[in-house]
Amino acid sequence: MDKQQDPNPPPQPQPQPPLSISPYGPARSTIPGTPLTPSEISQYNAFFKASLYLSLGMIYLRTNPLLTTPLSKSHLKPRPLGHFGSCPGQIFTYMHFNRLITKHNLNTIFISGPGHGAPAVLSQAYLEGTYSEIYPSCSLDPPGLEKFFKQFSFPGGIGSHATPETPGSLHEGGELGYSISHAFGAVFDNPDLIALTIVGDGEAETGPLATSWHSTKFLNPVTDGAVLPVLHLNGYKINNPSILARIRHEELRDLFRGYGWEACFVEGDEMGSMHQGMAATLEYCVREIKRIQQEAREEGKGERPVWPMVVLRSPKGWTGPRRVGERFLEGYWRSHQVPLTGVNESDEQRGLLEEWMRGYEPGKLFNAGGKGVSEELRGLCPQGERRMSANPVANGGGLLAKPLRMPDFKEYALTVEHPGGGRLEGSMGNMARFLRDVIANNPTNFRLFGPDETESNKLGAVYEVAKKVWMGEYFEEDEDGGNLAREGRVMEMLSEHTCEGWLEGYLLTGRHGLLNSYEPFIHVIDSMVNQHCKWLEKSLEVSWRRPIPSLNILLTAVVWRQDHNGFTHQDPGFLDVVANKSPEVVRIYLPPDGNCLLSVTDHCLRSSNYVNVIVADKQPHLQFLSMPDAVIHCTKGIGIWPAFSSCPPATSPDLVMASCGDISTQESIAAISLLLDHFPALHIRCVNVVDLFKLISHDEHPHGLTTTEYVSLFTDVKPVVFNFHSYPWLVYRLTHGRPNVGNMVVKGYREKGNIDTPLELAIRNGTDRFSLAMEAIDRLEESGVLKGRGGQVRDELRNEQLRCQAMAFEEGVDPVEITGWTWPRERERGLWGERHCD
Amino acid sequence: MDKQQDPNPPPQPQPQPPLSISPYGPARSTIPGTPLTPSEISQYNAFFKASLYLSLGMIYLRTNPLLTTPLSKSHLKPRPLGHFGSCPGQIFTYMHFNRLITKHNLNTIFISGPGHGAPAVLSQAYLEGTYSEIYPSCSLDPPGLEKFFKQFSFPGGIGSHATPETPGSLHEGGELGYSISHAFGAVFDNPDLIALTIVGDGEAETGPLATSWHSTKFLNPVTDGAVLPVLHLNGYKINNPSILARIRHEELRDLFRGYGWEACFVEGDEMGSMHQGMAATLEYCVREIKRIQQEAREEGKGERPVWPMVVLRSPKGWTGPRRVGERFLEGYWRSHQVPLTGVNESDEQRGLLEEWMRGYEPGKLFNAGGKGVSEELRGLCPQGERRMSANPVANGGGLLAKPLRMPDFKEYALTVEHPGGGRLEGSMGNMARFLRDVIANNPTNFRLFGPDETESNKLGAVYEVAKKVWMGEYFEEDEDGGNLAREGRVMEMLSEHTCEGWLEGYLLTGRHGLLNSYEPFIHVIDSMVNQHCKWLEKSLEVSWRRPIPSLNILLTAVVWRQDHNGFTHQDPGFLDVVANKSPEVVRIYLPPDGNCLLSVTDHCLRSSNYVNVIVADKQPHLQFLSMPDAVIHCTKGIGIWPAFSSCPPATSPDLVMASCGDISTQESIAAISLLLDHFPALHIRCVNVVDLFKLISHDEHPHGLTTTEYVSLFTDVKPVVFNFHSYPWLVYRLTHGRPNVGNMVVKGYREKGNIDTPLELAIRNGTDRFSLAMEAIDRLEESGVLKGRGGQVRDELRNEQLRCQAMAFEEGVDPVEITGWTWPRERERGLWGERHCD
Repeated sequence: MDKQQDPNPPPQPQPQPPLSISPYGPARSTIPGTPLTPSEISQYNAFFKASLYLSLGMIYLRTNPLLTTPLSKSHLKPRPLGHFGSCPGQIFTYMHFNRLITKHNLNTIFISGPGHGAPAVLSQAYLEGTYSEIYPSCSLDPPGLEKFFKQFSFPGGIGSHATPETPGSLHEGGELGYSISHAFGAVFDNPDLIALTIVGDGEAETGPLATSWHSTKFLNPVTDGAVLPVLHLNGYKINNPSILARIRHEELRDLFRGYGWEACFVEGDEMGSMHQGMAATLEYCVREIKRIQQEAREEGKGERPVWPMVVLRSPKGWTGPRRVGERFLEGYWRSHQVPLTGVNESDEQRGLLEEWMRGYEPGKLFNAGGKGVSEELRGLCPQGERRMSANPVANGGGLLAKPLRMPDFKEYALTVEHPGGGRLEGSMGNMARFLRDVIANNPTNFRLFGPDETESNKLGAVYEVAKKVWMGEYFEEDEDGGNLAREGRVMEMLSEHTCEGWLEGYLLTGRHGLLNSYEPFIHVIDSMVNQHCKWLEKSLEVSWRRPIPSLNILLTAVVWRQDHNGFTHQDPGFLDVVANKSPEVVRIYLPPDGNCLLSVTDHCLRSSNYVNVIVADKQPHLQFLSMPDAVIHCTKGIGIWPAFSSCPPATSPDLVMASCGDISTQESIAAISLLLDHFPALHIRCVNVVDLFKLISHDEHPHGLTTTEYVSLFTDVKPVVFNFHSYPWLVYRLTHGRPNVGNMVVKGYREKGNIDTPLELAIRNGTDRFSLAMEAIDRLEESGVLKGRGGQVRDELRNEQLRCQAMAFEEGVDPVEITGWTWPRERERGLWGERHCD
Repeated sequence: MDKQQDPNPPPQPQPQPPLSISPYGPARSTIPGTPLTPSEISQYNAFFKASLYLSLGMIYLRTNPLLTTPLSKSHLKPRPLGHFGSCPGQIFTYMHFNRLITKHNLNTIFISGPGHGAPAVLSQAYLEGTYSEIYPSCSLDPPGLEKFFKQFSFPGGIGSHATPETPGSLHEGGELGYSISHAFGAVFDNPDLIALTIVGDGEAETGPLATSWHSTKFLNPVTDGAVLPVLHLNGYKINNPSILARIRHEELRDLFRGYGWEACFVEGDEMGSMHQGMAATLEYCVREIKRIQQEAREEGKGERPVWPMVVLRSPKGWTGPRRVGERFLEGYWRSHQVPLTGVNESDEQRGLLEEWMRGYEPGKLFNAGGKGVSEELRGLCPQGERRMSANPVANGGGLLAKPLRMPDFKEYALTVEHPGGGRLEGSMGNMARFLRDVIANNPTNFRLFGPDETESNKLGAVYEVAKKVWMGEYFEEDEDGGNLAREGRVMEMLSEHTCEGWLEGYLLTGRHGLLNSYEPFIHVIDSMVNQHCKWLEKSLEVSWRRPIPSLNILLTAVVWRQDHNGFTHQDPGFLDVVANKSPEVVRIYLPPDGNCLLSVTDHCLRSSNYVNVIVADKQPHLQFLSMPDAVIHCTKGIGIWPAFSSCPPATSPDLVMASCGDISTQESIAAISLLLDHFPALHIRCVNVVDLFKLISHDEHPHGLTTTEYVSLFTDVKPVVFNFHSYPWLVYRLTHGRPNVGNMVVKGYREKGNIDTPLELAIRNGTDRFSLAMEAIDRLEESGVLKGRGGQVRDELRNEQLRCQAMAFEEGVDPVEITGWTWPRERERGLWGERHCD
C-alpha cells in the first residue's frame, strides 16, 4: 500500500526560479563519457558538413552543385523551397546512430517525425548510396548531384517531406502527430527492430503525439522490438517557440518519467562535446534496450520496463548564421523553412549563402575522381540493408511481408433456411468467430485494434484465442473476464489516433490488421485516414514500393441504433470523407447481412494497397442470403435480389426498391412486403448495394458500373426508392449524371437531434418500412401505376406506423422486435427459382 | 545554466517493484487534515446517499420513485440505460466543492468530462432545485421525481450525457477528450471563475486531452480564472483498465509535475476518511488558486505558476456491491454502464437492486411534507447563481454575453478602380487589419486562435495591437519579432484540438473568437466540429439556452496553392463534413475577393449559434468588386456579375460561367475573357457564389434559392461550366434535383498526387482558364451555338496553355503572375452600366 499520509502541515510549494534552457554552449549530457577519438570527431564533423551541404543544396541550387564556380543568381532555384530548421538535429542523430548500427549490427529504421525536414533523410540516403541505387540518374557524381538538388521541392520532382519516394521512409510527416504511434506499429512483432524516431517539439504539442508516449504500456519486450525516440528540442515551430523547449528542465524530465521513459538529455551547440555527448548517449540507449530485451527474453522479467529515450536540445538551423543583420536566424524560428529568403534578389544574401555553403567544404564530397562519395564519408555508413535508407522493413515489409493464412470464411456461414425470416442473428458476433480464427492462424502478423470497443462491438469471441496486450499492472479482478495478457493480439487504448497510428505502422511494415470503431467517432481520425490514402496513392506511382496490406476499418455502433447514446453518437459521414479520396485506393462496403459481412471481410483482409471501410450493425438481424448467394452478391457488389422481388429480373418493374446498409436493407425489404400485402400485382424489383462505388460511373472508379449495367438495375424510367445507411446526399453525388436520377428518391440520415427509439429516428428520416412504402406509393401514383389507389393503403400504413411508434416508445425496442415481421414464407424463393441474388 | 554533467558512471536504473494502486482502504491523501466535524461527515454521507439514489433511480425506475412499495418489475424501465460507474466519484467531488463555494463565495462551473455519467450532474441540479425551476414538471416531490426518473435516457426524454438540456452544463461529453480545453476556454478573461473539471481516466487517454494539460502555458493568472481538474481514476473504461490507473504512483505524480501541475491525491474507499481527505484537499486547492491569483494580481508575480489539481482514486461504481455472484461489479468495468443488467428478468437481481437502493435511504430525500428537498440536504447546497447548476456563465454567458464592438469593415476596403485588373492584392493581409481592430475594440471578449499559423496565414497585422499569450520562459531573441506577451489576445499552440477546444469553451461562455487554420489540416478537428454543431442544434430546442456567438473557422493555405507542401496538404473536403450537419447551424462562405472577405467576416463575427466556415486564399489576387458591390453580392450570397458578362442579366445567355472560391473565380473570369477574345459575340453570363448553401433547395436550407431564383441564374437549358474550390461532387450533391443539372459541368479538386506548380495542378483538374475555356467551347459546340467553330480556337488555347505550363514549370509561379493577365479595360463595367454584381 502506497502510504502518502503526511503528518506535517500542507506544503506551500514555491514556484521555482526559471532556469535558462538555452540550446547554446558545451554539451550538457545526462550520460557522461567520451567514446570518440579526436580522429573520429573529425570524421563526424566532415560527415555532418557534407550532409548539411546537401541539405542546403537541395533547398537552393539548380546548377553548379559543388560551387566549382562563384555562386550566381542563375545557379539558384527561382523560388527556393524546403525546411532547413530541423535538418541539422536530425542528421546529427542519424549519423551518430550509424556508428552503433555498425558496431552492434543493428536492424534499424529511421522515422522522421517532422517530415518537413526531408533534406535530412534525403542527404543520408544519398551519402549511403541508396538513392543512386534506386534512382540511377541521381548518381554519385556532380551531374547526379545536380539532378538530386534540382528535383527537390520542384515541379515534376519530389516533395519537401519524407514522401513515399524517399528510400527508407514509412512516415511522410507534413501532418504532425503520428511518428511515435507509427514507430510502435512498426516494431510490434519485429523483435529485432529498432525504430529510431525523431519527434519534433512542434509535433510533440499535438494531441495524438502527446498520448502516444503511453504506447510502452502495450509493447512486450519479448516479442516486440524497441522504439528509441529522440525528442528534438530545436525550440521553434513556424513562428512560435515550442512549449517543451520553454518549460523547466525538471518538468521535462518528470514529464517523461511520468510517461514511463527515462530521458537522456544532450543539450548544447559546441560541436566537439556534442559529438561525444550524443555518441555516449546513443550507446547507453542501445545498451539499455539490449539489457531490457535480454532480461525479458532470457530471464523472464515480466514487468513493464522503463525505456530509454533521448532529448536533443540543439539550435534550430544549427550551424547557420546566428544573425543576419539585426535579425536572429540560427536558434530562432526564422530558420524554420528557407533560412535566407532573399538570395535571388540580394547580392549580399547570396554572398552570405555562398560563404555559408562553402564552409561545409563541398569539394570533399566525392572521391578524387569525382565518382562516388569520398571514402572518409562512406566509411561512416553501414552496409547493405543495415543502412537505414535501405532497410526492407520500411518498404512495405518488402520480401518480408507474407499473405495471411486465411480460414475458409464460408465455414462460418449463418444458415439461412428462410431468407428474411427465421431467428434474428448477430452478424457481427458471428463474424467474430472468423476473425478469431484469422488471429489464431496468424499469430505473429495480424493484430486487431480498437479504442476500448472490441467487446462492445460484439467481437469478444477473439478473446478465445488472443488476449488484449497489457503491460500495466494486474489486479485480482482481471482474472474475472479481463482478457489481459502481456502477449496478446488485441490492442485497445482509448485513443483512436494511437490505435490507427499503430495499425498504419504495422501495415506499412508489411503486416495485417483491422481497426474496429464506433461509427460516429471514426471522424476523430479523418485526417489520419486522409493522409494514409495519400501515402498509398503516391506509393502506387513509386515502382520500387511493394504493395502493403490494406487498412481495414470496421464501423459499427451505427447511427440507426443509437437510441441510448443519442444525437452525439449519430454521424455516418465518414463515408463522405473516404469517398473524396482517390478511387485507386478507397473501397466502401455495406454488407446487408451476416454472410455478406463474412464475404466482404475475407475479401478486405486479402487485399492490399486499399483503405477498406466496412459498415455493419452489431445487433441481431434478419438474415437474407445463404453463403453461396452472399458470395455471388458480394463478388458483383450490387444486384437484383429475386427472392424479394415480385417480378423476374429480366422484366421491367413498376418500381425499384433499392437499399445499401444492413438496417436499411431490412426496412426496404419489409416495405416491399407491405406493398405486396396491399398490391399483390405490383412488379417490384429489389436491388441491393454492398459495394458503394458500384453506383459511380466506371469512368470515375474502377468498381463503377457502365451505363448499361446501371440501367439494367435501376431502369431508365421507373421510380426508385433508395434506402441508404448514411447521409442521402452521398448517393445523389455518386449517381450524378446517371440515367433516371430524376426518378430516384434517396432516404438516409439527416441531423435532427432527439432522444428516440430506433423506430422514431427512422420515421423522422423516412427510412422505416412504413415511410418507405408510403413514399413508394406516392411515386407509383405519380408514375401512373397506382392512379388514385394509394390513399386508403397510405392511411392503413400510417395507422400501423403510429401503433408501432407507440409500442416502441413504451418499450424502447426496434421495429423488427415490435412487429415480429419476417419475409412471408409463401413468397420465399420468389416466383422464379432458387437464387436469392442476381 | 542547467548543469547536469555527472562525473559518475552512467546510471543503471532498476525498474521499481510494482506498487499496489488499489482504490480500496482508508483515504491516502497528499494533503492531510480533518476539517470536517462528525456531524458534517454525517451530513455528507446523507447527501452522497441521496445523490446516488437519484442516479440509480434515473437509470432504473419508471414509477415508485421513493420505493414506497416493494420494488416490482412494473416499476422498472423495460430497458434500463445510462452509466453509473463514474457517478459516485463525480458526485463526491461536486458536493465537497459546494462546501467551499459557500465558505468562500466562489464563482464556479462544473465540467463533467466523462459526460456519460450524466446522473451525477442531473442529481445535483435536482437537489439544488435548479432542475425544478427550469423544468417545473420535475418538481421536488414524488410526482416530479417520478417524471425526473422516467425521462432519463428514455424516448422523448433527455440523453444520458450532460446534454444542452442539463442546467449548468456547457460540455456534453460522450465524445471524450475536450473537458480541459473547454474549461480553459471558459475561464479565459473570466478572472473570478473556477472551472471544476472532472477528467475521466478513459478520457485522459485520448490525444486531445493528453496535450490539453499544457494549457497552463497560456493562462494568465492576472486576467484569467482558474481550472481545477479532478482526474478521476476509477480504473476502468467500457471493458478495459485505464492506463493512468495502472502505472506506478510516482509516474503519475511525475507526469503531472511534468505537465506543470501539482497533483494532490485522494485515494481510497473508506467513507469517513475519504470525506476528510477530499474536504482538506479541495480546501487546499482553493487556497492555492487564491494565493497564485493574489500573488500575480497584487504582487505582480509574472512567472507561470504551478497550479493545483486533484487525483481522485475511488472504485468505479463506488458504494455498489463489490461482487454479484462470482462476478466483480464495484471497482470493475462491469459497473461502467447499467450495473445490474438482469433486473427485468431476474427476481434475485431485482432484489439486489432494491436492497442496494434502499440502503441509500430514499425516504430522507424530501421534507416531511413531501414537498421540497429535506433541509439537511438542501443546507449543503449553495444559493442562487452560486449553485454550479445555475451559474449563468454556463448558459452561453446568459446576460453576461455582449455583442462585439465592430469597426466598420467598409473602411478597410481595397480600392478596386479596375475590376479584375490593377495590382494584385492580398485579400487576407488586408482583412487582417480589420481583425486587428476588432481585437483592439474588444480587449476582453474576443480572441484569435490558431495552431502556429497566424503569421503564415498573413494575419500578422493583429500583432500591432495584441500579442500571443505566452506564459513559458522568454529568451533574448523573443524581442526580435516574437510577439509574445503574458497578456495577449492570440492563442497559438500546435494542437488544432486544443485551439478548437479553447475557442469552443470561450464561445460557450458567451465570448467571441475565430480559429484560423490551414485548409487541409482542419480535418484534424472534424469530429470536434461535428459535436459542436450537434450541441448548437440541440441548444436551439432548449428554450432557456441563450444564443452563443458563432464558431468562426477561417481556412486558408488552400489546395490550389500547395505547390510547395504538395499532396499531403491538399484536401478541401472539410466542407463536405460541415455540409452534412444541420442546415440550422452551418454556413459556408467562399468570398471571391478581398472586399467580399471583409463583408463575410464582418457578417460571421456578428452572428450567433452558427458554425461559419470561410475559405479564402492568402496569396495576392486580382480584385473584382468595389466595397458597395461586395456588400450587395455578399448580402445576396450568389449573383450575376454583369461586369464580367457579355450580355445583360435579363438576356438569355449562350453559356453560364459560374464559380465559387477566389482562385476558382479568377480562373473562371479569365476563361470568359479568353472566350470573348475569340468569340466576341458570345453571350456569356458570369455567376458567382459566395454563400455555398444558396445552391441547395430552399426546402433544405434557409439560405437555399427557390427554383425560380435558381433558374434565373443558371437558366433551365443553357450549358453551365462551374469552377469550384473544393471536390466537385459537393456541387453535384447540393444542386441535386435542380433544373438544368444535366447541362452543368463542375470542375474542382480531385486526388492525384504530384509535386506541381499551381498551374499544373489546375490543368490536371481542368480548373485553369484554358481548360475552362476549352470545356466551354465543347459545351457550346454540343448546344449548337458554336457548331464546328471551336476547333481552331481550342488548338490555340491548348498551345497557350502549354506555353504557360512550360514557363510555370521553369519558374514555379502561378498563372496570373505568368501571363500578367487582367480583365481588359475595354470591357470594364460591361456593356450595361455601373454595377459589377447583380
